[in-house]
This record gives sequence, C-alpha cells and structure tokens, in this order.
Amino acid sequence: MQTVQVNLGPSSYSLQITPGLLDDLQDLLPPAEGGVVITDEAVDALYGRSPAWDLTMHKIVIAPGEEEKNLQTAAAILDRMQKSGLTRHSIVVALGGGVVGDLAGFCASVYMRGIPYIQVPTTLLAQVDSAVGGKTGVNLPGGKNMVGSFYQPQGVFIDPRTLQTLPQRHFISGLAEVIKYGLAWDYAFFCYLQEHLSQLLALEEEILTEVIKRCCEIKAEVVAQDEKEHGVRKVLNCGHTIGHALEAVTFYKQYTHGEAVFVGLYLETRMAEGLGLIDSAQSQAILTLLGRTGAGLTLKEGLWTKLIRAMLADKKNRSGKISFMLPAGPGRVTEVLLIAEEVMELLETIATQ
Amino acid sequence: MQTVQVNLGPSSYSLQITPGLLDDLQDLLPPAEGGVVITDEAVDALYGRSPAWDLTMHKIVIAPGEEEKNLQTAAAILDRMQKSGLTRHSIVVALGGGVVGDLAGFCASVYMRGIPYIQVPTTLLAQVDSAVGGKTGVNLPGGKNMVGSFYQPQGVFIDPRTLQTLPQRHFISGLAEVIKYGLAWDYAFFCYLQEHLSQLLALEEEILTEVIKRCCEIKAEVVAQDEKEHGVRKVLNCGHTIGHALEAVTFYKQYTHGEAVFVGLYLETRMAEGLGLIDSAQSQAILTLLGRTGAGLTLKEGLWTKLIRAMLADKKNRSGKISFMLPAGPGRVTEVLLIAEEVMELLETIATQ
Repeated sequence: MQTVQVNLGPSSYSLQITPGLLDDLQDLLPPAEGGVVITDEAVDALYGRSPAWDLTMHKIVIAPGEEEKNLQTAAAILDRMQKSGLTRHSIVVALGGGVVGDLAGFCASVYMRGIPYIQVPTTLLAQVDSAVGGKTGVNLPGGKNMVGSFYQPQGVFIDPRTLQTLPQRHFISGLAEVIKYGLAWDYAFFCYLQEHLSQLLALEEEILTEVIKRCCEIKAEVVAQDEKEHGVRKVLNCGHTIGHALEAVTFYKQYTHGEAVFVGLYLETRMAEGLGLIDSAQSQAILTLLGRTGAGLTLKEGLWTKLIRAMLADKKNRSGKISFMLPAGPGRVTEVLLIAEEVMELLETIATQ
Repeated sequence: MQTVQVNLGPSSYSLQITPGLLDDLQDLLPPAEGGVVITDEAVDALYGRSPAWDLTMHKIVIAPGEEEKNLQTAAAILDRMQKSGLTRHSIVVALGGGVVGDLAGFCASVYMRGIPYIQVPTTLLAQVDSAVGGKTGVNLPGGKNMVGSFYQPQGVFIDPRTLQTLPQRHFISGLAEVIKYGLAWDYAFFCYLQEHLSQLLALEEEILTEVIKRCCEIKAEVVAQDEKEHGVRKVLNCGHTIGHALEAVTFYKQYTHGEAVFVGLYLETRMAEGLGLIDSAQSQAILTLLGRTGAGLTLKEGLWTKLIRAMLADKKNRSGKISFMLPAGPGRVTEVLLIAEEVMELLETIATQ
C-alpha cells in the first residue's frame, strides 16, 4: 500500500494507491448516511458490481464520453441525488475517468452547498492528474471546464489494476501527463521514465504503482503550494496551451486530452529550443521520450491559424499575450508570453526544419 | 454613509448602506476587465439605466419570480457570460432581490471556478438577509436551495431608497427577517423595533437605514463566527422550520418567503410557550410585535399533516427528529429536536386555545 498526503489545512486528505484495492473498497469508505456512486456505462460493466455499493449506495450511470460533461447532465444527476434522499452527511463516489470525476466532483460541490466525495479514478489520466487537486468542472457549449469549483475530495483510492482493462489508446494518452511531471517538476523522475518506459508500457504492476505514486506526490506538492492556481500550479500547464487549443479546434472529437497534450509537449519543446530556452541535446532527450510512447506528435500545417486563434481565447492569457509554460532546463519550465505573430513565426520555423 | 465589515479572513468584505448610493454606483465598483449586471425585468425597469453599467457592462435580464431560480436559467446565464467574453478578472453585479442575488451569486461562484461578484440588493429581504453571508443557491424541482455554494461577494452596496419603490407586500415580508434578528440575537434591537415600528412602516429614511445597518451587523457577526452553518449560524433559522415547510406545501406560490416566516415565527413562538421555554408575557410581546406589522400569522388547521411531512424532509434534521430554533428568552433561541407526533400535539394545543 502506498499513501500520499495532500496538505491543504482543514481540507487535507490522503491518496491511497494499492493494486487490488477495488475489491475491498467497502472497508475504505468513510461512514456516511448513505450515498451514491456515479460512474459511466463502460466502467459500470467492469467494476459496477462491487459489494461496497451494492449494499448501501445508490448508483447513477451516465453515458461514456466528454459530451456528457455538461450542465444538463449535472442537473439530471443533482435531481437524482435529491430523489435518492441524499443528505449533507451522505457521500458521493466518483468511479471512472476524468469526465466522471470532474462531473461527480462538481455535483458533490454544489449539492446542498457541498457534501463529501471520494475519487476512485480508473484511467491513467485520472489517477495521475484529474482526480488529484480538487478541480471540478463541466463544459459550456463555448468552452471546456468553463464552469466548476475548487473542491477537495475526502480521499482518493487508486487501484492500478484497473489499467489492465483500459484501452491502450487511453493508457498511452495518460502518459502525456506522466511525462509532463518529469519535464516540469522533477528531472530524476524524467530519468526514471527514460529507464523504465518499456516496463511501464508492458503494464508491470510495480512500475505502474511507483509511477502513479510519484505523479500523485508531485501533484499533491504543487497543489499544496497553490490550491487555486494563482502561481506555481501553472507549471503543470506545460504542453497544455497548444493541447487545449488543439482539442478545441478539432471539437474534442479527433484527439483525446492526452493525445492533444502529446502534440502540445512536442511543439512547445521545439518552441523552447527555437527560443534558446533549452539546447538541442535537451530538446532531443524530451522528443525521444515522447516518441517512444508511440503517441502521435506532429500536426498538419494547415491547422496553425485556427490553433493560434483558439490560443488567443485561453483563460491564462494576460494583456492579449498567449501564455506558455515552456521547458527551460532539466525538470524545469518557465512562463513565456508571446503575441500571435511570434507564435506563428516559431511554428513556421519548426515546420521548415 | 454606514459601513459594516464582514470578517472572514481572506474573504473579508464590507457592506455599505447609504440612501441614494445607486446614483453613484459607478464610482464604487472595483476595477475589473468588464463584467455583467444580472437583474430581473421589474428591477431593470426601475434601476436598469444606471451609467455604471451603460458604459462598460453587459446586462442579463431574467423574468421576475422564484420560478427562475433553477439550474436551467443558471445554465443560460453562464452561457451568456461566456459569450460576453467574461474572464476571471471580470465582475458580476447582482442587482435585485433574493432570487437575483442567489442566482447571480451561484453563477459567479462556478463560472471559471469562481469570479468576483458584488451584491446590490433592492428588496428589504435581500438587504437585511440574503445578500449578506455568501450563501448562493438555486432550486431543484424537489426542493428549494438544494444546489448552491458558500461564496462571499467582494462587496455589498445597499441603497435604502430602493425600498420606496418596493411593493408594500414585499416590504412587510422583509420585516419577518428583521424581527427575527431581534428575537434570536439582540433584545435591545427587539425593543428598538417595538419603539420605532410605525416609523419603519412609514419608510422613514433614517430609521430604515439604522434598521438595515443593525440587521447587517448581526448577520455579519453570526456569519463571521460560523461561515458554513456548522453551529451558531443556525440561530438565524428561527421561524424557518415551519416557514420553509409552509412554502413547500403551497408550492412557493401562495406565500412569499417572508410571509411564510411570519407564520413560522408566530407558531414557533407559541410552541416555545407550550414547551415552557418562554412565559406568556414574553410570548405576548413577540406576538404583538409580529401582529403590528399587518402580516398574516395564522394558518388553516387542514395543512398541518402536510406541513409536518414537509418538515421531516428538512436539511437540518438529525436522526429523524425535526430541528426547531425556538425563542427561549429575551434575544435568545435554542435548538429543540422533536418527533413528528410531538409537533402535531403542540400545534393541536395551540389551535384549541
């Protein structure tokens, strides 16, 4: 059993990472006046029969996919929660990937002005990123995560064995965030990934558990320093300025979040090299690790104008400049603010090399 | 100018109570990257032309009435906020009564995970109660304020002159909360109300301003001690166990919130007397003050079974017992937990007296 503490004063909680944990989840849940498990159809088919909720919990099953992460589905869930008689002392269990976690966390944060919730993430992306840190969110027609809250769970229970049933495409997706932690925060972890990537891709349980634990530790450390993203938490946006824009211009259909972040990490690393923030050896080391995952990294040139237009609408921009967190040394990124023309020039240089 | 400070650590803010303040609101608003005024049609017709927002602010006007306080309207407002290009540094101004304040506050609390908002309450109820304390909320089909957040405004600006245009029914409604503060917290204020009620009913500006200020001071004091209603804030629920139930069983159509609280204060005072918490002289003093407002106080006996069934669904109940905050002495209330049969017996005794 691996435990990671998230220190946030009165909102502190711990993450537990244990292979096989899902079988005994009923012993781990805190006492509550009943509750509800929120999950999606795909996860329900695999893990929806746990004795933990068959006995005492209601269950709400949504359709899978990012399209469900909207205010209409949230309203339907909240309505079901009320009809199930949930009180302020009931508990919400989010069982699934990022969509389920963000949506269930949001519903827990506003039902009766906030009731306890537990994250049980079942995808790599959720286990290393979205289930940790207390950001909840739903999409508006005009933008992703435009509505949400900062609301910490009471606990996060991670079973790395759920990754054995995760489609390979989604496992590789999740590696974008894993590599990001090495790039943006911890060079030793970057080197660990260089050394153990093949075992990780082979889903070796010990390596998986270690990697998830280290990612959670980094996320917990960053979030404890900056819960509401006023400062240091921004470093975790490395690869995401381009990643988010790419998701938006392809209407969240063509790329998973992780796939878009892979492209973002690739292009932002090359931008960093173009700006002289890192030398070509550093850049090559990053690009090689990204490439070894098998993820797609490059992009058709035709998308660039659209991409820059989407970046101009980013929440993180300041005074009309686009904010990037670019690699700036081993385990380190730095914020660079660029106007649209500068971004276009950098991308064009990359394309012609 | 009267100022009341709400002390909540980093979420502290001040309330300003000044007759005529609305004319100069543009000088009071904090600097922001644009923003939106949220109001309803009735208030818009009276105060929607202020230069403060004609210049720099978008405006969202909803239909008046409690029916609008739902997640569908919230979703439409959030969508409009996004289409208006509001950023994390924009501001939301809630201009209106309790419905507008609760709804706009909720939208501000979840848009981009929370952006600044300002309350400009225009009804007595909102000025003395709902605009102070940071409770936001919308209704579900199955219950009032079942969804919401604790989210403090950056400031509250109160112009007592707006009460000159408030329909008399709504002014009298608001007095229920005013008297509640005297009952539950401050006997000197209760005596002040006994002495100045006719001037208050005549809307004398100086008395109005003083009364609003004192109510805000009490609410600020209580909220500073207990922002999230774990303890002392409960005293402000005096009259509300029956009040909320009465609103629910009449489907929020027959009684305004204040009118239902008047009936609640009347019956709960009589229950307190029945339980020996106060003597008949104390009870009479309260009932007389309630009666002098002209508000309706009594209830048809036929509603009682329904009323008790509604009270059994109250968020504040514990272990199946109904929680009441009953008068227990001058300026003091106490929590009493009763089972349904005990409540019925008390109400029947009242009816036969």
